[in-house]
Amino acid sequence: MKEKDFILAIKKILNSKYIGDDCAYIEELGIVISQDNLIEDIHFKKDFATPFQIGYKSAMVNISDICASGAEPKYLTVGLSLPKDTDVEFVEEFYKGLKEACDKDVEIVGGDITGSEKICISITAIGSTKNRKISSRKNAKIGQKIIISGPHGSSAGGLEELLAGNRKSKLIESHLMPKAQKEFSKEIASTIKEDYAMMDTSDGLMDALSQISKESGVLLEIDFDKIPYDKELEKFDNYKSLILYGGEDYQLIATVTDPKNYTVIGEVKEGSGVKIGSKTYTTDEIENNLFNHFKEKK
Amino acid sequence: MKEKDFILAIKKILNSKYIGDDCAYIEELGIVISQDNLIEDIHFKKDFATPFQIGYKSAMVNISDICASGAEPKYLTVGLSLPKDTDVEFVEEFYKGLKEACDKDVEIVGGDITGSEKICISITAIGSTKNRKISSRKNAKIGQKIIISGPHGSSAGGLEELLAGNRKSKLIESHLMPKAQKEFSKEIASTIKEDYAMMDTSDGLMDALSQISKESGVLLEIDFDKIPYDKELEKFDNYKSLILYGGEDYQLIATVTDPKNYTVIGEVKEGSGVKIGSKTYTTDEIENNLFNHFKEKK
Repeated sequence: MKEKDFILAIKKILNSKYIGDDCAYIEELGIVISQDNLIEDIHFKKDFATPFQIGYKSAMVNISDICASGAEPKYLTVGLSLPKDTDVEFVEEFYKGLKEACDKDVEIVGGDITGSEKICISITAIGSTKNRKISSRKNAKIGQKIIISGPHGSSAGGLEELLAGNRKSKLIESHLMPKAQKEFSKEIASTIKEDYAMMDTSDGLMDALSQISKESGVLLEIDFDKIPYDKELEKFDNYKSLILYGGEDYQLIATVTDPKNYTVIGEVKEGSGVKIGSKTYTTDEIENNLFNHFKEKK
Repeated sequence: MKEKDFILAIKKILNSKYIGDDCAYIEELGIVISQDNLIEDIHFKKDFATPFQIGYKSAMVNISDICASGAEPKYLTVGLSLPKDTDVEFVEEFYKGLKEACDKDVEIVGGDITGSEKICISITAIGSTKNRKISSRKNAKIGQKIIISGPHGSSAGGLEELLAGNRKSKLIESHLMPKAQKEFSKEIASTIKEDYAMMDTSDGLMDALSQISKESGVLLEIDFDKIPYDKELEKFDNYKSLILYGGEDYQLIATVTDPKNYTVIGEVKEGSGVKIGSKTYTTDEIENNLFNHFKEKK
């Protein structure tokens, strides 16, 4: 967990109110901004994904960060560094994938293209906060319900299939072509009056729950049976772990007083950590579990 | 010049009004945005520059892009990918360098940190267009004077010294620790009434002149003797080439009707290309010269 030490060092040097959520909320300009680096053989493999899929997912990951803030995703810039032997078809397909993920709502407005040894993609997404109430992982309040936008574990299941060489499972689509939850985000952020927490589950459902618990100083009590998942996952012995700790589903969770018709998976309580069934996990335990879950994949 | 083919392909797919200038000007949000990737052993070498200097220059390069647009540099996000063996001191020094370049005016509000094989830095800069008139390289008009913010060739001279193993030259400072021309940008963009072109000379003075000539459909007539440069450069046989084609000085050039007290190096005329003395260079010739100049450095 070296990245954790790096982040601590950075926080100390910057001493900034902005570092914490996935997006920085710049009130003065009415925008949120988020940037992610995606590196070949660390975040994606050319053996598993087509250039189109790499472009699509790169954009979606960043659009999802904006959705998690509650802002409206509007613009992307794309820094792309490529090995010398890259052909123009790769660039074309990559950009077609980006454009597909952007759909009609998000526009690519700039970026940079350079050489490198391995592919390095860095995408910055900008969202508009106009008519939206912006979330923070610090905002969960006792009594709020925990709602969820969709199923979990599918992306991790898809990765298991790819690693096992099984290319026919429908779970693979969830891993390679995830969809940011724009509508869920919009419905909540454009109608809610109270402060609320919202996060995407890019690093796993338990990670998102743990971050909100830690930053808000509350206990999140979860009913595992309420978490939606694809029944195909049950073929894996560790399917419950895939649902809880598998990342990259890019669904959203939020804490709200009025859950309307959304799927409620739990409630915000006094205390700390995440309670599932009769067991309460501390945020440190969850971090260790996440670490071990990902270590298995290396 | 493979990057040129890539950019052509991207322009065709995106069909966007935004791609062209270094910054994208998003009127709706009152911002400009710019992103640059900097890759180890392509854009910088750890042998030549300290982590502090790498951080400093990475921020300055992007702040300079914002200055070129005429906007006020305000915020940065930083995507940083690092090899496994990187120590926390590198990250600390890198961030101290970033912070030094940001000074009091620019705030680092977010980013990402991941693993990679070689260091990959991607920085996004955001500027506010409030009370500023934004430039475009399409805006040069016949009769405008061409003004320049400072000396050229120092950074390229500094790189020559580093490559020759001479670490004592004061030119090296210009290469490792360039300064974005914030004041020049502010004075022009906050007072000018007419449309104007402005660019930084990150890829060399001739590149900037060539881009403005091409995009505005005009001839730029330059008096070489008016271009400021450090006399120390004269020790290099090719010093005139360093002044015209050497990159990374991060000075600004602009086309304005009233040059006030600024250094005037030429005038916008009817025609095309860049005229120096009695010779007119087409934009294609300049591109070839730039390519050959940089090829020598590989």
